[in-house]
Amino acid sequence: MQLATQLDKLGTETAFAVSGAAAAWAAKGHRVYPFHLGDINIATPANITEATYKAIKDGYTGYCPAAGIPELRAVLAADVGSKRGVHYSAEQVSVQPGGKPVIGKFIAAVMNPGDEVLYPNPGYPIYESQIEYLGGVAVPYGYLETPTGFALDLDAIKRSITSRTRALIYNNYQNPSGAQSTRQEMEALAALAIEHDLWVMSDDAYYEILYSGQAESIVNIPGMQERTVILYTCSKRFAMTGWRLGAAIGPKAVIDVINKLNTNVESCSPHFIQRAMVEAIPGDTTGPDAIIETLQERRDVAVAGLNAIDGISIAAPASTFYLFPNVTKIMARKGYTDVNQLMTEALTTTDVSFCTRKHFGRPLPGEKEHYIRLAYSGIDTEAIKTGLARLKEYFEA
Amino acid sequence: MQLATQLDKLGTETAFAVSGAAAAWAAKGHRVYPFHLGDINIATPANITEATYKAIKDGYTGYCPAAGIPELRAVLAADVGSKRGVHYSAEQVSVQPGGKPVIGKFIAAVMNPGDEVLYPNPGYPIYESQIEYLGGVAVPYGYLETPTGFALDLDAIKRSITSRTRALIYNNYQNPSGAQSTRQEMEALAALAIEHDLWVMSDDAYYEILYSGQAESIVNIPGMQERTVILYTCSKRFAMTGWRLGAAIGPKAVIDVINKLNTNVESCSPHFIQRAMVEAIPGDTTGPDAIIETLQERRDVAVAGLNAIDGISIAAPASTFYLFPNVTKIMARKGYTDVNQLMTEALTTTDVSFCTRKHFGRPLPGEKEHYIRLAYSGIDTEAIKTGLARLKEYFEA
Repeated sequence: MQLATQLDKLGTETAFAVSGAAAAWAAKGHRVYPFHLGDINIATPANITEATYKAIKDGYTGYCPAAGIPELRAVLAADVGSKRGVHYSAEQVSVQPGGKPVIGKFIAAVMNPGDEVLYPNPGYPIYESQIEYLGGVAVPYGYLETPTGFALDLDAIKRSITSRTRALIYNNYQNPSGAQSTRQEMEALAALAIEHDLWVMSDDAYYEILYSGQAESIVNIPGMQERTVILYTCSKRFAMTGWRLGAAIGPKAVIDVINKLNTNVESCSPHFIQRAMVEAIPGDTTGPDAIIETLQERRDVAVAGLNAIDGISIAAPASTFYLFPNVTKIMARKGYTDVNQLMTEALTTTDVSFCTRKHFGRPLPGEKEHYIRLAYSGIDTEAIKTGLARLKEYFEA
Repeated sequence: MQLATQLDKLGTETAFAVSGAAAAWAAKGHRVYPFHLGDINIATPANITEATYKAIKDGYTGYCPAAGIPELRAVLAADVGSKRGVHYSAEQVSVQPGGKPVIGKFIAAVMNPGDEVLYPNPGYPIYESQIEYLGGVAVPYGYLETPTGFALDLDAIKRSITSRTRALIYNNYQNPSGAQSTRQEMEALAALAIEHDLWVMSDDAYYEILYSGQAESIVNIPGMQERTVILYTCSKRFAMTGWRLGAAIGPKAVIDVINKLNTNVESCSPHFIQRAMVEAIPGDTTGPDAIIETLQERRDVAVAGLNAIDGISIAAPASTFYLFPNVTKIMARKGYTDVNQLMTEALTTTDVSFCTRKHFGRPLPGEKEHYIRLAYSGIDTEAIKTGLARLKEYFEA
């Protein structure tokens, strides 16, 4: 009795192996400094907890529509639209059990086997996994390091587009690099999508994790809203990673298909959580504001801690809760060629746990620089300070 | 910009159209008697609500393992194993956001494109949809009506097995027919699965919705546990349809694959709901017992109400909350040939809403009898009495 052969194409998040190594190290009695996971160690705002409890007691415990309850679809259409300067109707919203389900459903909705899909690399590894598992060709595009952060490698994107290119995955406010497009860069990317008639998935997971400036969305560029599906999640803004609620928002034809996939795959998302979010999303921003304030404080401490290390120089990203420092000089100092060796040794030498570039897609041909990724969403300020001081000592040795 | 061509193979639950028609009729000011939906209008037991609230406040709001929290996997292994007279370990359990996700994930795990999968028809329509959408050949098998209920058409199953048959879907305690295998029938089915080396999915959604006797599982037959994945759900036993929590339980090799699909598809199931069920599943049975008692009372009233109709004769199924009466004589009396016409006219004539055989798969060649499906999970006893009295008047006219 064999398993399905297509499973050979299914990837995973190798970052979970880093969690495993950190947990094993902690089990040996070490205090681990956890910079590896994109989870949030901040409580979900109390108004959401209370609204959820009330919704259960009020009997919102039965099935609801596969597309989500009408009230939440309307609230998300209004909120997501107004924050991007465009109009969405409720029927352009499909509620999901998290943001992640949008990735596979978007690809299943627009891609045929053999089609090519452009995706960011380094980037969230599930893009690559789902494109290939669903029979497509995953075509990576990279980023260029600049003194102020990371920029899309637009020339590489242009060169990679062929007659088989069907879709482009775009993750502005990017995991792992914190990359954030200028308006000019976004317009150049949009022009390519329009010229080559591509579907676009805009992974907006970190759209509202912004410490300065005004978030901008590619759907705001003429010609883009009708070809773009937004991945929305409650996970980051409301510290609700383990609640699993998100949405796909985009052209009705694609959303209708995604709703049909919902009916096939999971019936609906939890009813009472949807009910709770009807008031929380447009309501009191005290909770989300406090989350941003905490994260910003951590970011500043973490950036300072990294820049104090001889050989590391990093700009403070205005978004996400990730830092992606270039550690090429550290690697040279240590005489290492595999950045995962640095990660492994750092854990046992300093108790500091982090991911590397290798957890965010297969390295591209010709890559010479080495990067590690530190998340500051799951670690308090004091631990950030201590952990990075220990890392400094080890990196400089 | 086209959508994916494979979407042509994606089915849906046409029963939702019946809900739509009922809602539209209600919106015109009619009081509808809702026998159409398999939802439950009974509150989730209070101990689960309270445990959930506590789990949120205790901070179980972050990500958890894709396979489910270890404590819940252990509890489900023990509970599901002991109720079937077999042993499962925690690593043989993959927690899911509902029972439904198991269908697609099981098929994705064991079937290659072009493989044949046997599935019950009439039966839950998502089997057929997912087999075909994932590139397989959906091969239906039917049931034979007997004086005591429905029996598997074992001869038809035997004739349908070919060298391409890869898997069999078995839904004992069946939706829509309430069919329940004798031990002998189950052994005959198991012998076929073993002889032809088939994977089996045992849809156990209604395994614990049993009003008399002792539930029996095909995994209890030697040679079956190692080839069978159980679809488990909290939805029915705990009246938690809208909470979305279930599990796949089976051979570790398949469960490992399903866990990897979890990582790709939805990360994890809601953390605090899992935490609440750790105590509720093995704990106090007061809540589930009361749900069974309520449903059994409704069943008895509904069976009596149907048998009072001239031309209908139905045995009381010991399981599920569905009744699947043969309405061929009613159809003849009315001069109808399409059972959906009976359904449509019943709604506008009597305000009674129900589904028909046609909502549970494409009718098989040679089918001559007509059936309707009435669910008594979402309608109170008094409404059952009144609704069926109205139906009697219309059916006998």
